[in-house]
Amino acid sequence: MAALNKQVLLASRPQGAVTEENFRIVEAPLAKPAAGEVFVKNEWLSLDPYMRGRMNDVKSYVPPAQLGEVMVGQTVGEVIESRDPRFKAGDEVLTQLGWQLYGVAKGDELTPIDVKRAPASCYLGVLGMPGITAWFGLFEIGQPKAGETVVVSAASGAVGSVVGQLAKTKGCRAVGIAGGKAKCDYVVQELGFDACVDYKAGNLLDDLRKACPTGVDVDFENVGGEILDTSLRLMNRFSRIVVCGLIAEYNATQPYGYKMLRSVLVNRIRMQGMIVFDWKDRYGEAREGLAGHLAEGKLKYRESVVHGIDNAPKGLIALLKGENFGKQLVKLD
Amino acid sequence: MAALNKQVLLASRPQGAVTEENFRIVEAPLAKPAAGEVFVKNEWLSLDPYMRGRMNDVKSYVPPAQLGEVMVGQTVGEVIESRDPRFKAGDEVLTQLGWQLYGVAKGDELTPIDVKRAPASCYLGVLGMPGITAWFGLFEIGQPKAGETVVVSAASGAVGSVVGQLAKTKGCRAVGIAGGKAKCDYVVQELGFDACVDYKAGNLLDDLRKACPTGVDVDFENVGGEILDTSLRLMNRFSRIVVCGLIAEYNATQPYGYKMLRSVLVNRIRMQGMIVFDWKDRYGEAREGLAGHLAEGKLKYRESVVHGIDNAPKGLIALLKGENFGKQLVKLD
Repeated sequence: MAALNKQVLLASRPQGAVTEENFRIVEAPLAKPAAGEVFVKNEWLSLDPYMRGRMNDVKSYVPPAQLGEVMVGQTVGEVIESRDPRFKAGDEVLTQLGWQLYGVAKGDELTPIDVKRAPASCYLGVLGMPGITAWFGLFEIGQPKAGETVVVSAASGAVGSVVGQLAKTKGCRAVGIAGGKAKCDYVVQELGFDACVDYKAGNLLDDLRKACPTGVDVDFENVGGEILDTSLRLMNRFSRIVVCGLIAEYNATQPYGYKMLRSVLVNRIRMQGMIVFDWKDRYGEAREGLAGHLAEGKLKYRESVVHGIDNAPKGLIALLKGENFGKQLVKLD
Repeated sequence: MAALNKQVLLASRPQGAVTEENFRIVEAPLAKPAAGEVFVKNEWLSLDPYMRGRMNDVKSYVPPAQLGEVMVGQTVGEVIESRDPRFKAGDEVLTQLGWQLYGVAKGDELTPIDVKRAPASCYLGVLGMPGITAWFGLFEIGQPKAGETVVVSAASGAVGSVVGQLAKTKGCRAVGIAGGKAKCDYVVQELGFDACVDYKAGNLLDDLRKACPTGVDVDFENVGGEILDTSLRLMNRFSRIVVCGLIAEYNATQPYGYKMLRSVLVNRIRMQGMIVFDWKDRYGEAREGLAGHLAEGKLKYRESVVHGIDNAPKGLIALLKGENFGKQLVKLD
């Protein structure tokens, strides 16, 4: 164990795109757990698009990250010292300890994970928040039926890759949207989607129309902007749009102006915002379901790993530019 | 009975705003009913915002009106001659006969109306399509709960006026948006809304915020454009938007660019398109409910009447500019 903790703080709020200058890396003394607390050594840090929103000082579904504080984020780590009887040294846990090598949390804020069932990093991806987001967003809001077409943007990403594979388990046609040939090939050949459209190829509307010959019944939207505006043109009557992420807007200084909202009226679309926290009481149900598919080989995933906490800012910046490939993680030790 | 029929045909498709040149008024011989058909003398023609959409040659929820054909629309009229045993001369009926003085329809296309219960024109307004739209849109999609705030745009109009009054019957705070002091006064003083914001006063966001001190739980949207984009800024978590009409866009040559869609994600809004035809099998239920409120004096309405079929185009043009006040009708005889 190191003698000092290392932390990444939010140093300033980005104007537009995130830069490394928005972060400050510091060393700090190791904290000691009080009664009811647990001292954890973080092993993996999850990087996620929602973090961009937290860096702004605006009202959102949770308060923003605070200047001078440790950047927010989920980790998995090992319990080093426990003063909560439910945990003991050596246990693997899911935490909200953020961008740091070590941290202290109340026992209630930790979730035990079973590393015999799946590798620890899976609890940040396919069995974690992204997988659970896909599960409830698709099944509860998207409500896909066999034979329907499900489109998912950011299809090679942590959420999108699960959405398409879950859609296949329901007998749907799964169509991805991703950036570049390598990601599209992966989505079709490895993940088993029926088609994947490369939005960087410059013919999104035509290509998506060809990939969805009977229109779109469910759009699981992770990107927004022009991609959502294009999908709106192909939505069927009584179709559903799961608004899960709008990453195209997060770095923009001006919001995108959506021109195809008329489609919501004409096609009686149901469009609904999705934040996974709203299903907090049912995480276990999703994790069981996802673990079942994983065990059966029906849920493939890919991880994009940055090594060392010093590189976490670079990892987030790359993620927000779509340069990651699969679930973006930082390996901390 | 006149010797000739008079009809308003769609002469050309509007580019932007509708003009009188888009219509042609002609005389035509009176049709004779075949077996199973009914010959009707139209008394009232309904003018509605949806008609603007039908004048375009674009895919929508129903096929467009055809050039050279009688303009589409609902009427109420009197049966002159019936070759369907379910109807007899003198019956009052609701029809889809469009912009003409007389017409022939199959018996299946007619709905008998009870003029002892309410005046005939009510079956085009408060007990007709607009009232039924308000009923299902508010109750089935908006799902307002007592104590919640319901905002409705075009609040003095045929649909909006019913929405707010129905919201009051559920114990909600009803807030209208309308154009000009006269309409706003009417909405509050006559219809009993809690507040009404004049969008022409130029402070829509601030005024609406003041009228909705606890935010907006249901937005019943008849207008769209900047009004919807502004309401999106005030929507509460888990709020609902009924997209019933986008009249602000109908005359525009360029679609409006909605900038506040992020609110759908952040606030987990459910936004859903509403077309009354989807509830066709349940019209009776709504009409009963509306008639009950009408009988109890809980459903007030106002009619804006244009006299003579020659003036129907002017009536529609005025309606699309928001110059009507209440349900827009043409008195035909």
